[in-house]
Amino acid sequence: MTIHTALDELSEVLGDRLSRSESDLALHGRSEAHFPETLPDGVLYPDSTEQVATAVRICATHGCPITGWGVGTSLEGHALATKGGVVMDFSRMDKVVEINAEDMDVRVQPGVTRSRLNEELRATGLFFSVDPGADATIGGMAATRASGTTAVRYGTMRDNVRALEVVMADGRVIRTGSRARKSSAGYDLTGLFVGSEGTLGLITELTLRLWGQPEAVSAGVCAFPDIGSAVDCVIETIQLGIPLARIEFIDAECVRAFKMSSGTDMEEKPHLMVEFHGSETAVAEEAARFGEVVAEHRGGPFHWSAKPEERTKLWKMRHEAAYSMRALKPGAVMMATDICVPISRLAEAVEETTADIAASPIPGPILGHVGDGNFHATLLIEPGNAAEMKAAKDLAARMADRALRMGGTVTGEHGIGLGKLDYMEAEHGDGWSVMGDIKRALDPGGLLNPGKLIRSN
Amino acid sequence: MTIHTALDELSEVLGDRLSRSESDLALHGRSEAHFPETLPDGVLYPDSTEQVATAVRICATHGCPITGWGVGTSLEGHALATKGGVVMDFSRMDKVVEINAEDMDVRVQPGVTRSRLNEELRATGLFFSVDPGADATIGGMAATRASGTTAVRYGTMRDNVRALEVVMADGRVIRTGSRARKSSAGYDLTGLFVGSEGTLGLITELTLRLWGQPEAVSAGVCAFPDIGSAVDCVIETIQLGIPLARIEFIDAECVRAFKMSSGTDMEEKPHLMVEFHGSETAVAEEAARFGEVVAEHRGGPFHWSAKPEERTKLWKMRHEAAYSMRALKPGAVMMATDICVPISRLAEAVEETTADIAASPIPGPILGHVGDGNFHATLLIEPGNAAEMKAAKDLAARMADRALRMGGTVTGEHGIGLGKLDYMEAEHGDGWSVMGDIKRALDPGGLLNPGKLIRSN
Repeated sequence: MTIHTALDELSEVLGDRLSRSESDLALHGRSEAHFPETLPDGVLYPDSTEQVATAVRICATHGCPITGWGVGTSLEGHALATKGGVVMDFSRMDKVVEINAEDMDVRVQPGVTRSRLNEELRATGLFFSVDPGADATIGGMAATRASGTTAVRYGTMRDNVRALEVVMADGRVIRTGSRARKSSAGYDLTGLFVGSEGTLGLITELTLRLWGQPEAVSAGVCAFPDIGSAVDCVIETIQLGIPLARIEFIDAECVRAFKMSSGTDMEEKPHLMVEFHGSETAVAEEAARFGEVVAEHRGGPFHWSAKPEERTKLWKMRHEAAYSMRALKPGAVMMATDICVPISRLAEAVEETTADIAASPIPGPILGHVGDGNFHATLLIEPGNAAEMKAAKDLAARMADRALRMGGTVTGEHGIGLGKLDYMEAEHGDGWSVMGDIKRALDPGGLLNPGKLIRSN
Repeated sequence: MTIHTALDELSEVLGDRLSRSESDLALHGRSEAHFPETLPDGVLYPDSTEQVATAVRICATHGCPITGWGVGTSLEGHALATKGGVVMDFSRMDKVVEINAEDMDVRVQPGVTRSRLNEELRATGLFFSVDPGADATIGGMAATRASGTTAVRYGTMRDNVRALEVVMADGRVIRTGSRARKSSAGYDLTGLFVGSEGTLGLITELTLRLWGQPEAVSAGVCAFPDIGSAVDCVIETIQLGIPLARIEFIDAECVRAFKMSSGTDMEEKPHLMVEFHGSETAVAEEAARFGEVVAEHRGGPFHWSAKPEERTKLWKMRHEAAYSMRALKPGAVMMATDICVPISRLAEAVEETTADIAASPIPGPILGHVGDGNFHATLLIEPGNAAEMKAAKDLAARMADRALRMGGTVTGEHGIGLGKLDYMEAEHGDGWSVMGDIKRALDPGGLLNPGKLIRSN
C-alpha cells in the first residue's frame, strides 16, 4: 500500500493519462503565491468522470493522496500536493456540455475557464457572473467558493452553482441539486461541496446559474480625499438601495501600480470603481443618484459612461490588478490577504490595515470588493528575504485577528488551503471540529487533498 | 436508558420547563396537514441556549429522541415526534436580540415569527423578505429551508441566513458563519443546517440578512385564457430581465376559493399576481413593460397600482390561500404538494397536473411561485375517506415523478419530513446515502428528529 504501487496501477489502467515527467511534476508543484514548491508524484489528466472514479478507487486501495487541479491560480496553496500522491488535472475535461437558455443554466465540465465559458455563452444573451481576478477554471472556483467584482449583485459561487456531479472518496459518483431554482429536499450537498476545496470529493460536472446580459450598463470611477469617505459613500449607497452591479475600492498605492503598468491618469488617491446594470433609464438614474452620494462624501467628480470600450478598459485594469502590483516591486512574491468584515466596520478595518502596512518594511496595496465588506492587501515580499516574509506573515495574522474581532471572516473568497489553516480554530471554534467530523465521515482514509482546510491526522 | 428516565431527569434539572400535561402533548401531537396525531412524551420550553444544551445532554445520556417545534405550521409532519421523546418548543426563545441597521442584519432567537420580526423592524426601513404562507417561526423556516412569494427576487432561507448558533447532538454549542456577507472559510455549515429539519442539530440563534424597504412598489393582477399563456408570460418576463419582486400563479379553481372566502371579483381563469420594487420611475417602467408582455400572451388587461392598501389586499388574499381553499370543501384535510421544475418545463408540469387532478375524485387548486418554477396543488380530502386519501397520495406521487422526470425536485420549499421520505432515493440516488453518512457522523445516536429526512436505522 504505497503511492508507488498506486501510480503503477494507474499507469496500467489509464495509460498515458498519467504523467510522471519532470516538467509535469514541476508545473503542478508551484502556485501563484508565496508557498514553496511541492512536487506531486504523478499528474493525471482524466477525460471523463469514469476515469476520475476509476483513479479514485485505485488511489483508495493503495492509500495514495489525490489533489484536484484547475489551472493553478488559487492563492492559498490549495492545489499543492503537500502529502505527495497524484494531482488530478482537469484540463481535458473542459467542455460546455449543455446550454439551457430558457432556464438560464449551463452544464459544464470542471476544467473550462470562466472566460471561455462566457465566450461560448455570448450568442445566447446570457452570461456567467462570477469573476475572480484570475481566469480560473469553474471547478476550481467552485472548490474555493470564489467570487469577484460582481458578487454584490449576482452573488458568489455559493449562489451560482445549482447542481454538481461529484466523485466521492470511495469512487461513488453522486449528483447533488437539480436544475430547479430552489429545493428543500434534504441536506444542501451542493452547498457543502462548494468551498470544500477538494477535501470531500472531486467535482466532475457543474450546473451553473446564468444571468441575462443587462440591457444597458453604466460605469465610472471617482477619487476620494481619504479611505473613510470612500467607504462611507459605499455604505450609504447600499442603504439607499441603489442597485450596484459592482463597487470596487482601490487605494492610492494601488493607483500607483495601475499608473506604472497601464499609464492611467488617475490621481494617487483612494478611488471607487462602480457599475450599474439595468434598463437605459435605470442605469442613468442610478449613476446620477450615485454621483450625488459621492459629492456628499467629498468625492468626485464622478464621471460615468455607458460606452463599452471605456468600461472594458476600466475592468481590465481592475482584473489585472494582481499583476500590476508586481510592478511596485519587480520580482517580488505575493502574499494575498482576503478579509471580509461587516460593512459598518469596513472603514476601520481598511484604515487599521493601511496604518499597519505603512509601519512595516513591505508594500501592500489594498483593493476590495467593498460592497461585500471584502478587501485584499497584496503583500509584496523580496524572494528569500526572511525578515520580509516574517513581516508579511505578521501583517496577515493581524488582519485575520482584526477580521474576527470585527465579526468577520479571515477569507472572503480565496479559501483556506494551506495559508489560512492556522486561523480556522479562531474563526470557527467547535464548528471546526464539526467540519472534521464531516471530513472523516466522507473521506475516512483522509486521501482527498490532505492537510487542507482540516488538519490531517 | 429510557425515555422515562430522561423525562425524570429533565424535570429534576429544568423544573417546570418540562410539561407532561395532556393538553400540551395533544397540542404538539398534530400538524396542519393530513398526518395522524402522534403524541410526544414531554414538551420542553427552554428559555436559553444553555437550557437547550443541558436538555440535549440529558436526552443523549438516556437515548431520548428530541424533535424541534416552532409553531407547528410545517406541512410535511416535520415536528411530529413519531419516535416519541421530547418536543423542544422554542416559543419562549422568541427575542429579536440585535438589529444592525448599518449592516442590514439582525440576530434573533428561533421562536420569533416572521410577522413579529417585521413589526420590530418597521422603524428601521429594513425588512426580512422570506414569507411562507403561514406565520411560521424563523427557526422553523430555517430548518425547512422555507421560501415564499419573494424568493424570485430576494432568495430563500438558504440565501437569507448569515450565521447560526446550533446545539449539536452531544450538547456542544457551535457558531456557524459570521456577520460578513460572504466567506470562503471552510465548509458551509450554515448552509448545511438550513434545511436539515432538526436532524443534525437544534438551531438556537440566527443572524439574518435584511433588505431595504423599496422606495416604491407597484403591484397588479391579470387574467390569462389558459395556463400555458400565463407561464409563457412569466418565462419571457424573466428572460427580458424585468426585475420581478413577486410573480404568483393561481389557477381558476384557486380563484373560485378566493371568491368564496374573500368575495373578490376576479374572473374564474388562471391569473398572475406580480409586484415590482425599486425607484418610482423604475417600478412604473417595469409595470408598463410587463403589461406589454402580458398582452403579447393574450392576457390582461393588466391593472397595476402603487397604492399600499390595494397591494396589501392582494397579498393578504394570496397568503391566506391555504385557508381559503378549505372553503372549497369544508372540513377537508389538506395534502400540500410542492414540486419545483426548470421554468422551461413549468407549463407542461402544471398542465399535466391539472389534467391528472381533473380525472381524480378530489379537488386540488393550484398556485405557485412561478418565477422559481415552484407550484402547489392543495389536495382536499374528506376526513376518514380512505379512497380519497389514496387518490391524493397517488396524485402526489405522480407529481413527484413528474418533477424528477423534468429535472426538478419533489419539494421546492416545504421540506421532506415524513411526507416526502419515499422520494428521497429517487431524487438523490447515492447522494441520499451521503446525507446518511453526515447524519451518522453528527448524530451517531440518531436522537435528533429521528425518522425525518433520513430513514432511521
